[in-house]
Amino acid sequence: MSKEQRAAVDAMLRQPRPAEPQSVEEIRAGFRAIMAEMIVPDGIRTTAVTLGDRPALLVEPVANPRTGTILYFHGGSFVFGSPETALSLTGSLVARTGFRALSLDYRLAPEHPFPAAIDDALRAYRALLDSGEDPSTVVFAGDSAGGGLTVTTCLAAREAGLPLPAAILAFSAGLDATRTGASMDTKAGIDPIFTREELEHTKDLYLAGRDPRHHLISPAVLADLTGFPPMLLQAGANEVLLDDSTRLAVRARDAGVDVILDITADVPHVFQSFTGVLDEADEALDRAALFLAQHVRTGA
Amino acid sequence: MSKEQRAAVDAMLRQPRPAEPQSVEEIRAGFRAIMAEMIVPDGIRTTAVTLGDRPALLVEPVANPRTGTILYFHGGSFVFGSPETALSLTGSLVARTGFRALSLDYRLAPEHPFPAAIDDALRAYRALLDSGEDPSTVVFAGDSAGGGLTVTTCLAAREAGLPLPAAILAFSAGLDATRTGASMDTKAGIDPIFTREELEHTKDLYLAGRDPRHHLISPAVLADLTGFPPMLLQAGANEVLLDDSTRLAVRARDAGVDVILDITADVPHVFQSFTGVLDEADEALDRAALFLAQHVRTGA
Repeated sequence: MSKEQRAAVDAMLRQPRPAEPQSVEEIRAGFRAIMAEMIVPDGIRTTAVTLGDRPALLVEPVANPRTGTILYFHGGSFVFGSPETALSLTGSLVARTGFRALSLDYRLAPEHPFPAAIDDALRAYRALLDSGEDPSTVVFAGDSAGGGLTVTTCLAAREAGLPLPAAILAFSAGLDATRTGASMDTKAGIDPIFTREELEHTKDLYLAGRDPRHHLISPAVLADLTGFPPMLLQAGANEVLLDDSTRLAVRARDAGVDVILDITADVPHVFQSFTGVLDEADEALDRAALFLAQHVRTGA
Repeated sequence: MSKEQRAAVDAMLRQPRPAEPQSVEEIRAGFRAIMAEMIVPDGIRTTAVTLGDRPALLVEPVANPRTGTILYFHGGSFVFGSPETALSLTGSLVARTGFRALSLDYRLAPEHPFPAAIDDALRAYRALLDSGEDPSTVVFAGDSAGGGLTVTTCLAAREAGLPLPAAILAFSAGLDATRTGASMDTKAGIDPIFTREELEHTKDLYLAGRDPRHHLISPAVLADLTGFPPMLLQAGANEVLLDDSTRLAVRARDAGVDVILDITADVPHVFQSFTGVLDEADEALDRAALFLAQHVRTGA
């Protein structure tokens, strides 16, 4: 990135950190404020819809639609975030591919701890299939905790005997609540977004006392990915969560699954949000769009 | 891949294996015969040139050229192969990017063992720079042993104090003559191309008694990649050489380098050669072309 780009990103990230622990509502409001600064691309329109029995945001291209549905799961540690806070990401994928996205407003902790988010995501996918959508035209995509949902929802779909989606795309996925990745230590102090303590707080809210050693909570260390569709895992080299992606890629390799592990140096967690500001963000989104286009079978 | 594609690939790979060890000339002729069946794309033209003091094949787009030079290193275990045997790959990259390629006819073992190939590759790169080419418009690309050369030539360039190229692209790179990757055993019998014995034979010709524990021979286990340009490493999941790429990707991650590890299930060594036959080949080449276009600075 250029010096100007770095300065812009630093300014967006340099939110004053409160000295006292925040309430859940304060965390949610703070994240909304940060993500409201992200650039949403032109050429899309949004509509509030219902999917399964949850609200969702339908994001569509204004022109030149193509057959394909991105079932999107926003980030926010399972405690904060919404389809609106992920709109720069969802909109960027829609604008680049011509596919529609359905961005799910799944239930959040602490009001609804594990497995509420996965239950909602699976119900949304089942509703899509029940509506007649061909699974070969559906991809799961998400960022951070939502990147984790792309994987755990696919595991849950497999366990439910459903056909699997055509591909999985995860930006800086959170895939290990045991927090045993080497990057949890090697990137501590380098990661401009997360500390171990912050991650512990939201994890405790999500788990509500559950053991993190569960394949639907920590797939990077426990999941068998046999039969999974092609996966693109993008992450920043400075993230404490980096090795969530690297370890999932190893598990995918061991399961004989198509996998692309795409690590960008010197960028923060979910750097793709900085579309329009950071070259690396737009380049990563271009690679993601090509990957999606290669795996959605749009027919003749 | 479809059933028809698999049958076509199997037929191309199902060369009768000679019962007796072959002479070097027999190995070279056999490889020429196999690679002559690969499809070379339309829209390119080739010219014999000299680069450094070695022959090279200039591969150019017939129409719509763009600024950018791919310095290409063909595969063949450092014992066989030539720019002609890699023309399906080189031509595919040129046709997709609009860049020109210079495919180097480096010296081969056993007549010229290590480090002759690296010396030739470094001399070729130096000649390019001496001709006024901006390193930010040069990428190193190669397959198999030539994939290894993309990395070792970059190491040699760094040691020589030269500016580094803009990116590295390696198809099924051979990066470890110590042969300690887990895939050497886990993919034995699955890999339709290589056995450990075949790899040992050509390795012995290349090393001519040298210890394989040398960073310019086994970079996947010994190289420090600090300061390297962005790397795209593509490999097939069925290869005994798979973990050459996975371990280099880990080293790149540890060095803070941009790296994409791109593993395709159920395809053989350098499957990109099957362009026009195998969907996975063309899709991987499309991803490679996007990667090159993202990293060559073509100016305004």
